[in-house]
Amino acid sequence: MTNFDKWIDRFSQRYPSAERLGVPVAKWRKSIYVTIFESNTKLGRNFDRILTILIALSLLVLIFHSVPSVQKSSFENLLSGLEWFFTIIFTAEYILRIISVRKPVGYIFSFYGVVDFLSIIPAYLSIFYPDAHYLSAIRALRLIRTFHVFPLLKGFMEDYLFLGRALKSSARKIFVFLSVVAVIVFVMGTLIYIIEGPENGFTSVPVGIYWAISTVTTVGYGDITPSTGAGRFFASIMMLIGWGILAVPTGLVGAEFYRNMSYRPDGMKYECDKCHEKLHDKDANFCKICGNEIIKK
Amino acid sequence: MTNFDKWIDRFSQRYPSAERLGVPVAKWRKSIYVTIFESNTKLGRNFDRILTILIALSLLVLIFHSVPSVQKSSFENLLSGLEWFFTIIFTAEYILRIISVRKPVGYIFSFYGVVDFLSIIPAYLSIFYPDAHYLSAIRALRLIRTFHVFPLLKGFMEDYLFLGRALKSSARKIFVFLSVVAVIVFVMGTLIYIIEGPENGFTSVPVGIYWAISTVTTVGYGDITPSTGAGRFFASIMMLIGWGILAVPTGLVGAEFYRNMSYRPDGMKYECDKCHEKLHDKDANFCKICGNEIIKK
Amino acid sequence: MTNFDKWIDRFSQRYPSAERLGVPVAKWRKSIYVTIFESNTKLGRNFDRILTILIALSLLVLIFHSVPSVQKSSFENLLSGLEWFFTIIFTAEYILRIISVRKPVGYIFSFYGVVDFLSIIPAYLSIFYPDAHYLSAIRALRLIRTFHVFPLLKGFMEDYLFLGRALKSSARKIFVFLSVVAVIVFVMGTLIYIIEGPENGFTSVPVGIYWAISTVTTVGYGDITPSTGAGRFFASIMMLIGWGILAVPTGLVGAEFYRNMSYRPDGMKYECDKCHEKLHDKDANFCKICGNEIIKK
Amino acid sequence: MTNFDKWIDRFSQRYPSAERLGVPVAKWRKSIYVTIFESNTKLGRNFDRILTILIALSLLVLIFHSVPSVQKSSFENLLSGLEWFFTIIFTAEYILRIISVRKPVGYIFSFYGVVDFLSIIPAYLSIFYPDAHYLSAIRALRLIRTFHVFPLLKGFMEDYLFLGRALKSSARKIFVFLSVVAVIVFVMGTLIYIIEGPENGFTSVPVGIYWAISTVTTVGYGDITPSTGAGRFFASIMMLIGWGILAVPTGLVGAEFYRNMSYRPDGMKYECDKCHEKLHDKDANFCKICGNEIIKK
Repeated sequence: MTNFDKWIDRFSQRYPSAERLGVPVAKWRKSIYVTIFESNTKLGRNFDRILTILIALSLLVLIFHSVPSVQKSSFENLLSGLEWFFTIIFTAEYILRIISVRKPVGYIFSFYGVVDFLSIIPAYLSIFYPDAHYLSAIRALRLIRTFHVFPLLKGFMEDYLFLGRALKSSARKIFVFLSVVAVIVFVMGTLIYIIEGPENGFTSVPVGIYWAISTVTTVGYGDITPSTGAGRFFASIMMLIGWGILAVPTGLVGAEFYRNMSYRPDGMKYECDKCHEKLHDKDANFCKICGNEIIKK
Repeated sequence: MTNFDKWIDRFSQRYPSAERLGVPVAKWRKSIYVTIFESNTKLGRNFDRILTILIALSLLVLIFHSVPSVQKSSFENLLSGLEWFFTIIFTAEYILRIISVRKPVGYIFSFYGVVDFLSIIPAYLSIFYPDAHYLSAIRALRLIRTFHVFPLLKGFMEDYLFLGRALKSSARKIFVFLSVVAVIVFVMGTLIYIIEGPENGFTSVPVGIYWAISTVTTVGYGDITPSTGAGRFFASIMMLIGWGILAVPTGLVGAEFYRNMSYRPDGMKYECDKCHEKLHDKDANFCKICGNEIIKK
Repeated sequence: MTNFDKWIDRFSQRYPSAERLGVPVAKWRKSIYVTIFESNTKLGRNFDRILTILIALSLLVLIFHSVPSVQKSSFENLLSGLEWFFTIIFTAEYILRIISVRKPVGYIFSFYGVVDFLSIIPAYLSIFYPDAHYLSAIRALRLIRTFHVFPLLKGFMEDYLFLGRALKSSARKIFVFLSVVAVIVFVMGTLIYIIEGPENGFTSVPVGIYWAISTVTTVGYGDITPSTGAGRFFASIMMLIGWGILAVPTGLVGAEFYRNMSYRPDGMKYECDKCHEKLHDKDANFCKICGNEIIKK
Repeated sequence: MTNFDKWIDRFSQRYPSAERLGVPVAKWRKSIYVTIFESNTKLGRNFDRILTILIALSLLVLIFHSVPSVQKSSFENLLSGLEWFFTIIFTAEYILRIISVRKPVGYIFSFYGVVDFLSIIPAYLSIFYPDAHYLSAIRALRLIRTFHVFPLLKGFMEDYLFLGRALKSSARKIFVFLSVVAVIVFVMGTLIYIIEGPENGFTSVPVGIYWAISTVTTVGYGDITPSTGAGRFFASIMMLIGWGILAVPTGLVGAEFYRNMSYRPDGMKYECDKCHEKLHDKDANFCKICGNEIIKK
């Protein structure tokens, strides 16, 4: 089993493997386990689908509940009620997950175990701090599994994994790049603070760095802008630098994508043993360059 | 006939095939049909050209008519008159298209059949709702056929199809990418709403999401900007994320373009004599299916 | 002589060929011709260098002259004087170019002939319309030849031609792409005008189109922004579209660049006759894939 | 030893080679030299690590010290004290570096020698000009060595060098590109000054150029925007141009990255046994210089 296959498995299962969770022996616990942790039974698949729809609905309620005109309308009570309804359901789900496995710790401290917990706790906190319940927006992360759950969207899974693989292989380079950008942005942010000063809106070095980031990334809000000649000259140079180095992550990911295209979706390589040509089509049996048969490894 | 050829055909014909429309038998109906649905007669080609010019002119009139200083001037009546003139012509064209085929339903519910209908109906609606007539701007979609109609621009058709093919083959990946961005933007938009709050312009979660999209895409209007230290720190991280993931669609489409360049524009000339596989790469010397040498004709 | 070499020649000579200009017979005219039109004599090269420096200086004077604080200072007269000094020199140069060739029409209507004319005429117009003299900024186009003139910068010529070649080969595709963007921007600009209306700053359809372009290109000035919920939702979609299609020209040019890298700077190809591998280094004598000798064509 | 290896060496050593600095003979001076200039002893490595942490801390102090609310608080004295503490340490380090080598000039005028000097002098200048001490932010440049110093981050060194190599090989092309952009931006900035004029915020040609740069790079602050119809039309064209040419540096760097990926990260392992050429591509089977087969070790 290659590294790549393990990754697919870990991803499609979402929760830790049966060994780490400990499949329960008691019949009633086992049937709960199979339904909520696995998706190879009809009941399990339907559970996943209903859960995904409930998550999406709970997020919609959250969005609408935050709109001032809705808060003042008669819908307010309905939306509050719905939020508590969803909280109870997801709390019940969380408790069921814990009691249905023999080693609850394996679930509680897994990535999605933490997300599940963080998605329900803000609602209870909101009794004391009303605004806290918006933090349950983190529940949106659970929607990433949508492609896996609905048969119609399963075709996208391959592209999803392709994107992930390409990003993963550029991740280290992008990290290095961002750390160099951090040094540039720090020096630039300090210089603009010296040039323009608090009287032109650059009230501190952190504000200068915030401005430098918004300029280098070409976002350019315009809430803080240079107004002296020297500051504008300096800003012009920064824009050109930002524009130039924007090319770096883009070029990196693009080159990585193209290289990844020569791998089959299952992570195997198609390389001709004779002429070492790598870019063969998925359906190729013979090398298009030298005519040698391709042994699929 | 490969999938690709069908696509070219469907595109160049614009309207459904003769079989689906039903070529009329009566001589007068058939001559109308040939003129307005086909472009292999001189009359048909001229009809297409005049129609394209009329569409472009009607859009220019629409633009000028919306300018306040024009609306107050003496040109107002002239432009109103011209708009009705164009509406009558396009209505007549629509009626002719319906009566000249034996199966009008095939035309009415085709893509361009719907566009044709939506392009004339707003003018009639404007009798009751004056602003409605701007909706006829959808007529602009009919201009996409311009490359096909004018001989001078026919050279661009190949590039047009190349772009379409490359985009089509990245479409699924871009869709997957945008759905991941949607999750990020939702979480970020909720967090900024909690951090900054209504007192700094982030009046609701949807407004936060609107801000998050404008930041991640590096548009950065600056109509809503963070003003607290925490908010600006958070925004800086979002800009860098946005800048980084901007690389994803760009890299994807670029890699797809480069791969597409190795296919012949006509997609079928390199046919294998043995197994009759047609879709070989430009640089292929041997058939990828059966290993037979390809004789380039 | 390949197409590519002709292009180099035309570019390095800048002015039409000797045949089209008509080399004069009289000795004094011929010596002027050789000095100002050719660059294979020491005098000719120095003339080119001094001219380039004068053009750069005249542009600097133009820039400084426009600053309000300079206009009010005692430098004003000096700068005015310098501008007239440059105008007289460039006028003299223009007259010399005309009288030193036998067929002045060939020079006057060539690309740089027109630029030369447009660079001096605004100064004379400024007697009647003071602001007109800024139009002489078009003189900056003459600076593009700088890489050719100075020996230190000659090394950049190859990169300059590489960029030109790659852009030239994507030009048609970029044109097709921009015409599709034009249709999208027109429809979007009209829709935002209907949604937001004049009361929110979208005073006419052209203003809506201006906004749509600033959004799709991710410039996002923020001088006109949607303020209704529907408008912001619509704007969010537009930003994502713009972000997505931004990938198209970038990907195109990138793919074209990569393809161009397999050509030698002199436009000849390095392709292996045996295995058809194309990406060889400049100094390669043998194919890195199959070991076959490369015959440089 | 190839050019590339020299570059790695120079980079990892940071300071000039032992020959250029002159290793001292006296025992106490030599032990100082080995500790602060070299990193092959345990003491030397720890010195490097502590120094890197001190630099990072001194920059954090600088940032916090600039925030107005901190300046007014009781922390002010603590931060001032810390800044002087860091200044004294770095001054001591600078003096030690000078006295521990036999040829101090070789150190003082090296790149990092100048950075070291510029990092301590602003603190002393701040006695006369209080704001000057922010200039010590240039110390951030010393952090670039972080990847080299900490064992955990050493894995990133390869990616760091990869990025550097790819950027270095596109540097000339990007310079040529930016000089063409400079000409465009100059002409455009002058034209918008003529079109919009001082009454709409375009107070001089330099301001127009500043606006043109912010538009072409898609930053779009929105502090200065066109308000006439002609100006907006002109701005729309500029945005599209900027969007189009943005593709150029991106495409360039991307293509360069992809080409660089085919080189081995160590750049020298595939040595030809016959002609001893070392810089072969990753996919090379035969020597590109002499055609001999490469035995991959």
